[in-house]
Amino acid sequence: MSTAEASTNSSATADVMAAPNLSVLQSTLVKQTKAFVCELCLQFYTFGWLSGTGGSVTIKVHQDHIPKQHQLIVMSPSGVQKERMLPEDMYVLSSDGSILLIPPTKPYPHKPPKCTDCAPVFLKVYELRNAGAVIHSHGMESCIVTMIHSSSKEFRIRNMEMIKGIQGYSCHDELVVPIIENAPSEGQLVESLTEAIRSFPKTNAILVRRHGVFVWGDTWISAKTQAECYHYLFAAAIKLHQLGLDHSL
Amino acid sequence: MSTAEASTNSSATADVMAAPNLSVLQSTLVKQTKAFVCELCLQFYTFGWLSGTGGSVTIKVHQDHIPKQHQLIVMSPSGVQKERMLPEDMYVLSSDGSILLIPPTKPYPHKPPKCTDCAPVFLKVYELRNAGAVIHSHGMESCIVTMIHSSSKEFRIRNMEMIKGIQGYSCHDELVVPIIENAPSEGQLVESLTEAIRSFPKTNAILVRRHGVFVWGDTWISAKTQAECYHYLFAAAIKLHQLGLDHSL
Amino acid sequence: MSTAEASTNSSATADVMAAPNLSVLQSTLVKQTKAFVCELCLQFYTFGWLSGTGGSVTIKVHQDHIPKQHQLIVMSPSGVQKERMLPEDMYVLSSDGSILLIPPTKPYPHKPPKCTDCAPVFLKVYELRNAGAVIHSHGMESCIVTMIHSSSKEFRIRNMEMIKGIQGYSCHDELVVPIIENAPSEGQLVESLTEAIRSFPKTNAILVRRHGVFVWGDTWISAKTQAECYHYLFAAAIKLHQLGLDHSL
Amino acid sequence: MSTAEASTNSSATADVMAAPNLSVLQSTLVKQTKAFVCELCLQFYTFGWLSGTGGSVTIKVHQDHIPKQHQLIVMSPSGVQKERMLPEDMYVLSSDGSILLIPPTKPYPHKPPKCTDCAPVFLKVYELRNAGAVIHSHGMESCIVTMIHSSSKEFRIRNMEMIKGIQGYSCHDELVVPIIENAPSEGQLVESLTEAIRSFPKTNAILVRRHGVFVWGDTWISAKTQAECYHYLFAAAIKLHQLGLDHSL
Repeated sequence: MSTAEASTNSSATADVMAAPNLSVLQSTLVKQTKAFVCELCLQFYTFGWLSGTGGSVTIKVHQDHIPKQHQLIVMSPSGVQKERMLPEDMYVLSSDGSILLIPPTKPYPHKPPKCTDCAPVFLKVYELRNAGAVIHSHGMESCIVTMIHSSSKEFRIRNMEMIKGIQGYSCHDELVVPIIENAPSEGQLVESLTEAIRSFPKTNAILVRRHGVFVWGDTWISAKTQAECYHYLFAAAIKLHQLGLDHSL
Repeated sequence: MSTAEASTNSSATADVMAAPNLSVLQSTLVKQTKAFVCELCLQFYTFGWLSGTGGSVTIKVHQDHIPKQHQLIVMSPSGVQKERMLPEDMYVLSSDGSILLIPPTKPYPHKPPKCTDCAPVFLKVYELRNAGAVIHSHGMESCIVTMIHSSSKEFRIRNMEMIKGIQGYSCHDELVVPIIENAPSEGQLVESLTEAIRSFPKTNAILVRRHGVFVWGDTWISAKTQAECYHYLFAAAIKLHQLGLDHSL
Repeated sequence: MSTAEASTNSSATADVMAAPNLSVLQSTLVKQTKAFVCELCLQFYTFGWLSGTGGSVTIKVHQDHIPKQHQLIVMSPSGVQKERMLPEDMYVLSSDGSILLIPPTKPYPHKPPKCTDCAPVFLKVYELRNAGAVIHSHGMESCIVTMIHSSSKEFRIRNMEMIKGIQGYSCHDELVVPIIENAPSEGQLVESLTEAIRSFPKTNAILVRRHGVFVWGDTWISAKTQAECYHYLFAAAIKLHQLGLDHSL
Repeated sequence: MSTAEASTNSSATADVMAAPNLSVLQSTLVKQTKAFVCELCLQFYTFGWLSGTGGSVTIKVHQDHIPKQHQLIVMSPSGVQKERMLPEDMYVLSSDGSILLIPPTKPYPHKPPKCTDCAPVFLKVYELRNAGAVIHSHGMESCIVTMIHSSSKEFRIRNMEMIKGIQGYSCHDELVVPIIENAPSEGQLVESLTEAIRSFPKTNAILVRRHGVFVWGDTWISAKTQAECYHYLFAAAIKLHQLGLDHSL
């Protein structure tokens, strides 16, 4: 499924498809995953990652016998206050990005549901990295850290214990996170994000200049743990810069 | 209703008027709106927006068949700890600003109820902008951001993703928020606030120097979402200024 | 009762006195006040005011027919984690500072109960200012603000809306808070605190250098509201100083 | 038990030993201690001390008739989100560091249990200082404070009230906390930590450069109280440094 199609689907309002999936969509596993996305969003909101309806979270519906690339996908809706979502507000997408379940329209003052604008980015990350969950945060540290060196294409930090929390790194390694430029809509980030992921095959995160960060992992646990470590490192880098210390040394 | 009248009414203690509204005042909708103002105030208090009894929130009682300019108005009381309010502590005003429901006097050490000092400002915003809710915050970022350039009449920021959260703006637009000078009482802000709203017809917020910010929206959702985006942008601007970076570029 | 006596009493462990007060000590009012001190301490702990067992809160047991100077006094214990206290951990003192109720000794790893080291200071404030409640905070902003101008005997700030939250001040007034020097124990602060209160008859707070602040009010509401305003102003002053702006202008 | 053995045991998955302890392992006291480690970890997580699965907590199972050096030890698992642990996730170790109770393996996406990497450090602190609890925090203030003077082997601060919260210190004493260099795994810190504890016999804490801090005390109350005071002092020192003030004077 191309980005364009995802983008089209995400603004559709009624084309539930794939009848064979109906019982699956009502399964306990799907319900639990939807509830869990809400729970994580509430927690991340308290961290300031999802302020003002910004940011988003997606998790795959894990089933041992289904390969990750074929698992259903839960995504949060767009433009919704992330600390007040209910499981029934969640979207469910097929593994190829078709919207299988559109949440019901809520009464005034809620707007008609719309799938997260990040859908094309999330689907691309799932495709390229076989991730089990992706977190998109607007945490202020992830935004500001891209502005300290405003023309740098990478954020670099080394010799910090918390680097150990990032998959594939020890505390003495240099952590490099690619920075891509912002665009008016998340969908327009797909091309540069794809390029960055291909250029940095080891990365688990992409910073977006003056915007925020995408972090992913094999599982929601890995995505969340790494997202916390990245935010810690971004905040520490800003603090060190403010103290006149170079965090890349 | 003039500002002077609102100010007079807000210090009255017993002139409940408009008998035909009595059943409406006890309706579930009014009760829900009162409860919801309390809930939002508790949340905003935890953000530091309503510290020390400062700040206030007002929401219109929405009914589909009543045009917004004729809807009842719920306001929080004045000088009350915003995280400890109960629905019965709320004021209800008619669409023209007459106080219809005065909360009962509470025992010692509570003072007799008084409608928020912001009533004249809130009513003026409702009149000029047909808003559904107004939030007045003392969040420190909204106070300090007016002091960085102490003679500037506007706060300006551009090229930040969170600008997209403000109605009518994309992330690459320059966001401009007018700053008016502070006055000993909120009622005395009405004239300069009116002028600022007329001079900046696109604005959804007015900063008050060394004081805080008023933010409004069509609905409580829009007001709250934008208030979170504004506070994020104010805090980011202060941080960037501290790092020697110019947020208006 | 002299400070020396209060200090002696506060380290006593069993001399419950004044049999006629026994039923009063078990009254609902006393129980409610004890519960309320715990509730406020938990809230203030989340603000960082009572970190590491530091700081303390005292409230008078209000009864309409008893003049404030004769009301019973509830105080929190010394060296106890303020977010984990129960009503039965509270001390009750007579209006002259005699300990009427000593909380029971708790099992390991709790230490034997001891009345707050602030008792002499609290009693002196009650005596000099007829307060209904006193809050002693170690909030970092109250500590750091005394260190910016390390030889200044006063903290000064003006032209901030939050000054309006301090009793007797409008937003354009200059707020002055006396700073006294720290001493190894709170009891040793009584003399300089007394002098500062007498020199600044309008003040509702005393800063202690490199330590924290005492704030009081007619009622717990007034003490808490003002404590929040003072902490806001201290934090703003530090931020402004950091931005190269003079908060006393 | 040597560090090497602890390290080996901590990666074992099934060698529950010491049958005579079985009833003890299921005792109310052990259950309570396990529940309490979870409760403290949740609290410390909200402080930012245990972000991204970092940091750890251990408490001895107190029994009046058993000398502290023979008491059972509860430790949290490694690489687990500290705010989401349950009592059954805890490890129980004998006083000599043998693992007596391995928590059950949880389903996907949880990894097989592993005892905290800090086990060798925790056991060494228990051995050298007869502590009742040890807290390992990644609180950002404890990390950054070691980087201000990047070659200093000690953190020094004096004349702060919160120093009084550290066992053996008054507010006018100079507090000295040794700083050791970081290593790829916590186990490799044992040697330098041992040396630092011996060189600073009065210390209740060891800072680890670019990493965090270990704090201990006779009881969990003492460890927690001191950990809060240390974090307050680290944060104050950073703030003072930023304001151009020397915290060691």
